[in-house]
Amino acid sequence: MSGQTFTTTRKVRFADCDAAGIVFYPRYFEMLNGVVEDWFAGPLGASFRELHMERRVSVPTAAVEARFIAPSRLEDDLTFALSVTKLGGASCGLRHVIECDGQRRFEATQTIVFVGRSLKPEPWPEALRVRIRPFVEAQP
Amino acid sequence: MSGQTFTTTRKVRFADCDAAGIVFYPRYFEMLNGVVEDWFAGPLGASFRELHMERRVSVPTAAVEARFIAPSRLEDDLTFALSVTKLGGASCGLRHVIECDGQRRFEATQTIVFVGRSLKPEPWPEALRVRIRPFVEAQP
Amino acid sequence: MSGQTFTTTRKVRFADCDAAGIVFYPRYFEMLNGVVEDWFAGPLGASFRELHMERRVSVPTAAVEARFIAPSRLEDDLTFALSVTKLGGASCGLRHVIECDGQRRFEATQTIVFVGRSLKPEPWPEALRVRIRPFVEAQP
Amino acid sequence: MSGQTFTTTRKVRFADCDAAGIVFYPRYFEMLNGVVEDWFAGPLGASFRELHMERRVSVPTAAVEARFIAPSRLEDDLTFALSVTKLGGASCGLRHVIECDGQRRFEATQTIVFVGRSLKPEPWPEALRVRIRPFVEAQP
Repeated sequence: MSGQTFTTTRKVRFADCDAAGIVFYPRYFEMLNGVVEDWFAGPLGASFRELHMERRVSVPTAAVEARFIAPSRLEDDLTFALSVTKLGGASCGLRHVIECDGQRRFEATQTIVFVGRSLKPEPWPEALRVRIRPFVEAQP
Repeated sequence: MSGQTFTTTRKVRFADCDAAGIVFYPRYFEMLNGVVEDWFAGPLGASFRELHMERRVSVPTAAVEARFIAPSRLEDDLTFALSVTKLGGASCGLRHVIECDGQRRFEATQTIVFVGRSLKPEPWPEALRVRIRPFVEAQP
Repeated sequence: MSGQTFTTTRKVRFADCDAAGIVFYPRYFEMLNGVVEDWFAGPLGASFRELHMERRVSVPTAAVEARFIAPSRLEDDLTFALSVTKLGGASCGLRHVIECDGQRRFEATQTIVFVGRSLKPEPWPEALRVRIRPFVEAQP
Repeated sequence: MSGQTFTTTRKVRFADCDAAGIVFYPRYFEMLNGVVEDWFAGPLGASFRELHMERRVSVPTAAVEARFIAPSRLEDDLTFALSVTKLGGASCGLRHVIECDGQRRFEATQTIVFVGRSLKPEPWPEALRVRIRPFVEAQP
């Protein structure tokens, strides 16, 4: 059984573009952060507001890696697809694939960690683990 | 006859918030820029991509003024309402009213200017002027 | 006796520029925020880290107004000059004048408010008030 | 002979921090971009203004990878050290090591590419190649 993919879209805004008229790459990471935010608020059922403000936990990024394949320009409609490469004890590996009109723009992998009120990594709460699991990529 | 209002919505993202957990005010101006972008791409029929990339014209901000009334927090759904206070020769006065659940969050006025290929202010092209006019606020 | 001016400099970075190759105006406000940060950490003797993290107080912006006179480009060395227009009970009016090589780029006025642990405006602590006072502009 | 390291410092600003009071990781990439900017404008003798505005060339990022080791907070004085892992025909591999008071905060590697007026990768101009070479890390 293959894993689910979380898909979202985002138009390239004027604020995202640099003097060369293409997306300034740090802004791509801001977009990726937004994708993770939407994934938590949506299918995972735990919004960042709830996590950060109410439960005082967080899901910081421990590592990220991106390969930029083709530039994106103002008003391009980007499609972001997120899947899970590995669900560890306190960590979770994510894969992002970003396309525009079927053309691959960039790919990224990211490792996020569940950090509890102790400000240290803690095991994913079971309620989150259960909802993350369907997004784990099928093994070949 | 009262003028039209252009309305759009935007959720407060993690990237918009500061260490105090509220929207960092420079990000509000980035949001306002997005509203103007959407207004041009939508009812005015001339997207920033077309203006900047193809026609080599722009609509820079000559002045802006904002009054922050109540703070906004992560995941607040903000409603942005734009109207036109004055349509001048090369300039256009905008009014922004931003609310969340009926509560006023901030108000802003902004003056944008049409700048042509000459890199100097030029009269609004008639096609734009015709489409801006319905948004001019009714005079009492 | 004329009031003191707090002066700082900042080079325009690639990250500040938009697709037109000039400073994206929301970034100007981020720069102004940095000027206020430096003023507090320097002559006012109370850094934002101390205020926000240790004392749990803040100095949010209640209003801001800017007039953009000439565009700034990549690597322009901007000079920021800050003075105080009015020191109120819980508020403080600031004036910013930004120049490059003697050319006025933009001017702004800003009202900041002292917000205590109560999350409500409170009178400026005397230690801060004493250090802000020398920056109040001389009355004619 | 060991390679040179380009070192620069940067204080963590309020604008860099997120609602958890630590540096929002996309801002780290904006900082890295600033380091590369300073390296070009300084020892490489070719500022981004000259490259982008006058020569109409650019040095986009083809890939980047970062490992975040410890969080950074408001007003931390970060030290950025840049060296070159590999100088290719049109590409250049960079290594970034970021510390605060001797504590490793994060590490990154980045691949930049020289893109000419053709908007395609082109060999590094000899004048740049000569100045990049001293930063190539010594092979063991």
